[in-house]
Amino acid sequence: MAGPMQKNPSEFNPGATLMRRLEALSLFSEGGDGVTRCFATKEHHQAAEMIQAWMRDAGMSAHVDAVGNVVGRYEGTAADAPALVIGSHQDTVRQGGKYDGAMGVVVPISCVEHFNNTDQRFPFAIEIIAFCDEEGVRFNSTLLGSRAIAGTFDMAALETTDNDNIAMADALRAFGTEPNDIPSLARSKKDVLAFFELHIEQGPVLEEEGLALGVVTAIAGGTRLSATVTGFAGHAGTVPMDRRRDALTAAAQAILTVETYCSSKPGLVGTVGRISAAPGAVNVIPGKAIFTIDIRAGDDALRRQAVKDVCGEIETLCQQREVDLTIDVIHESDGCQCAPWLMEQLESALIRTQHPAKRLMSGAGHDGMAMAHITDVGMLFVRCKGGISHHPAESITEADADASARAVLHFIQNFEPLNET
Amino acid sequence: MAGPMQKNPSEFNPGATLMRRLEALSLFSEGGDGVTRCFATKEHHQAAEMIQAWMRDAGMSAHVDAVGNVVGRYEGTAADAPALVIGSHQDTVRQGGKYDGAMGVVVPISCVEHFNNTDQRFPFAIEIIAFCDEEGVRFNSTLLGSRAIAGTFDMAALETTDNDNIAMADALRAFGTEPNDIPSLARSKKDVLAFFELHIEQGPVLEEEGLALGVVTAIAGGTRLSATVTGFAGHAGTVPMDRRRDALTAAAQAILTVETYCSSKPGLVGTVGRISAAPGAVNVIPGKAIFTIDIRAGDDALRRQAVKDVCGEIETLCQQREVDLTIDVIHESDGCQCAPWLMEQLESALIRTQHPAKRLMSGAGHDGMAMAHITDVGMLFVRCKGGISHHPAESITEADADASARAVLHFIQNFEPLNET
Repeated sequence: MAGPMQKNPSEFNPGATLMRRLEALSLFSEGGDGVTRCFATKEHHQAAEMIQAWMRDAGMSAHVDAVGNVVGRYEGTAADAPALVIGSHQDTVRQGGKYDGAMGVVVPISCVEHFNNTDQRFPFAIEIIAFCDEEGVRFNSTLLGSRAIAGTFDMAALETTDNDNIAMADALRAFGTEPNDIPSLARSKKDVLAFFELHIEQGPVLEEEGLALGVVTAIAGGTRLSATVTGFAGHAGTVPMDRRRDALTAAAQAILTVETYCSSKPGLVGTVGRISAAPGAVNVIPGKAIFTIDIRAGDDALRRQAVKDVCGEIETLCQQREVDLTIDVIHESDGCQCAPWLMEQLESALIRTQHPAKRLMSGAGHDGMAMAHITDVGMLFVRCKGGISHHPAESITEADADASARAVLHFIQNFEPLNET
Repeated sequence: MAGPMQKNPSEFNPGATLMRRLEALSLFSEGGDGVTRCFATKEHHQAAEMIQAWMRDAGMSAHVDAVGNVVGRYEGTAADAPALVIGSHQDTVRQGGKYDGAMGVVVPISCVEHFNNTDQRFPFAIEIIAFCDEEGVRFNSTLLGSRAIAGTFDMAALETTDNDNIAMADALRAFGTEPNDIPSLARSKKDVLAFFELHIEQGPVLEEEGLALGVVTAIAGGTRLSATVTGFAGHAGTVPMDRRRDALTAAAQAILTVETYCSSKPGLVGTVGRISAAPGAVNVIPGKAIFTIDIRAGDDALRRQAVKDVCGEIETLCQQREVDLTIDVIHESDGCQCAPWLMEQLESALIRTQHPAKRLMSGAGHDGMAMAHITDVGMLFVRCKGGISHHPAESITEADADASARAVLHFIQNFEPLNET
């Protein structure tokens, strides 16, 4: 188990302690490969107990709120000061890693512990929240904890059931909280100065550029489409090339259209992750092809234009090939811009801790998307090995954990709320 | 049931009779949609009885040979004259149509019946063979009947078993033949002047050109490949476009390479009929894509060059995309050229019966591929509706059946063996 942080302010090197704490948290897992810690489970309860203990060791008050968030508070110089809220999520995907979410909880706790040990207190309070459920594995309903804090929690979600037919409300009561109190968790805007989250990148950009840290510009919005191309099946030997209405060659052209378009615009990504061709025999020209398209961008207008343009290009190529096309939107979420003033302060923290001020987009979703409803959002990414996440092989280095903690420490120490700048 | 053919030679219009006979044969089916008549079954036996009856009505001797072929012979002006062998197959795919195979049996019988009724006899004998098994549905071993006649029957195939674990040898004995006698079926080259087959096109060319009949130039050879592209899976949101090693976009480019290359060379067809991407989630960049390639041409050199060129292009694009590629050959068969002298005589028959002398390739396999081992091969295709075959919807018109019979009649009447021309 982790020991207390060092008291000497010039020697804030919590990397080894952070790695031990991350390892300790990972033990609260359902079993099997990797870490599986779902919302309102025994493992969630165990993790919450440990996180509260670390918070209290760091000089914070700590409690578990009605939705299952662990909330710690380090008071400012005045009582009831508005808070810089910092946090990430305690839950994981099934067979996930040790760092996704957990890192954004243990690192700020180490910073507050350092402030407490060195008698530093600020004009603002620091709140650290370990959100109960960002991944949404158990009830297929993401961002439960941050939505509760932001006042956008949908109380109807309490009726949803998990695979064992347990309703969310019952799961929370078994966990030890009263779900009817969730509406009272909503914060007022005046009490929150900003929301900040530290998270592993879950992508390869920082590693490939040899950087430990990067400032997030936006959490991408996304559109997911399902496309069906209907041509005409035929004998692979008897139908000449110029008489075919091959659904799969049309789909192939569509896949390259997605790739080419999305490669041509910075900040845009587009992926075809699933495809099938029917009837699916080696010697039969496909009469039908079904595939998905996932398009994301930090800039919603860029994404919407991309969806329109890509669908238009695919429509045109299908007309030219005399095959039919239907495209359905199966998911759509708007992006979340990080606040420029927070990005600037995070960049200052990177520069002061000897890191280039790299900016990058988050293609994955985060609790900031919910918190943006009540406050400005900033995020810092930490390099992860091979860009691998949501996998037991998820990995970071102790040196990067250490570097991230120092950057967060500087960010908090020099934090200036927007209305004071 | 079909009545006797008309005796007046100027009025050879057997279309209606042919359609009735094809309908009658189609009733010998396992049941379910379409026609299912497999090798060495009760339905095969029933069909063989009916075909022999028609042959005898046409003035032929008829018997079922050791492998299950129905063999009819119409003697020439001299006893034991070498024969023009004409035939097609009695069997069908599962839930196939009424015309694939059967048409090439009933049409030449109608011609011989006409010769018999009008006292026409030729310097050559006419043999009509309803081959036992071209499709290979029951034992997954095609061209059994024609291979026996050509002397290339593999006796080891008798040991193979069907889905009910019945060995082919036992199936033939239950059917009523002695499989050990199969080697004696092999014909010597001097006894066979040529092999001719009438068959439905199984493709759309004749219908789209408004033609009832066409002379086949070659039965295509084919190469089937299985390609596996291995890239690197990743989060669809977090991996920038220029850092991806997407297996599916590489596969899409490969699919278009097959299409473009095969469209650029007359006589070549190329098809990707199956594809899968793994892990296959809408929000995950595919790390692996597996697909098939089927390339066919009447000209083996053209096909081999195409396989080499297409594989080379795919190898290059995979190298450029930094993804790995493996390609395996899963099937390869050489093509069968139709004999120019037979093509010319068939064209003369078309012209004499008021049809343009259309030539086209057969992309599907036929018994001629086996018969080519002992004699020259010629084929005539009949238009089928929508190019649809191997399907209950397989369809021809009575007018086309009639026209095909008149063309075959003229072909036989004017047939001149190669060594006499």
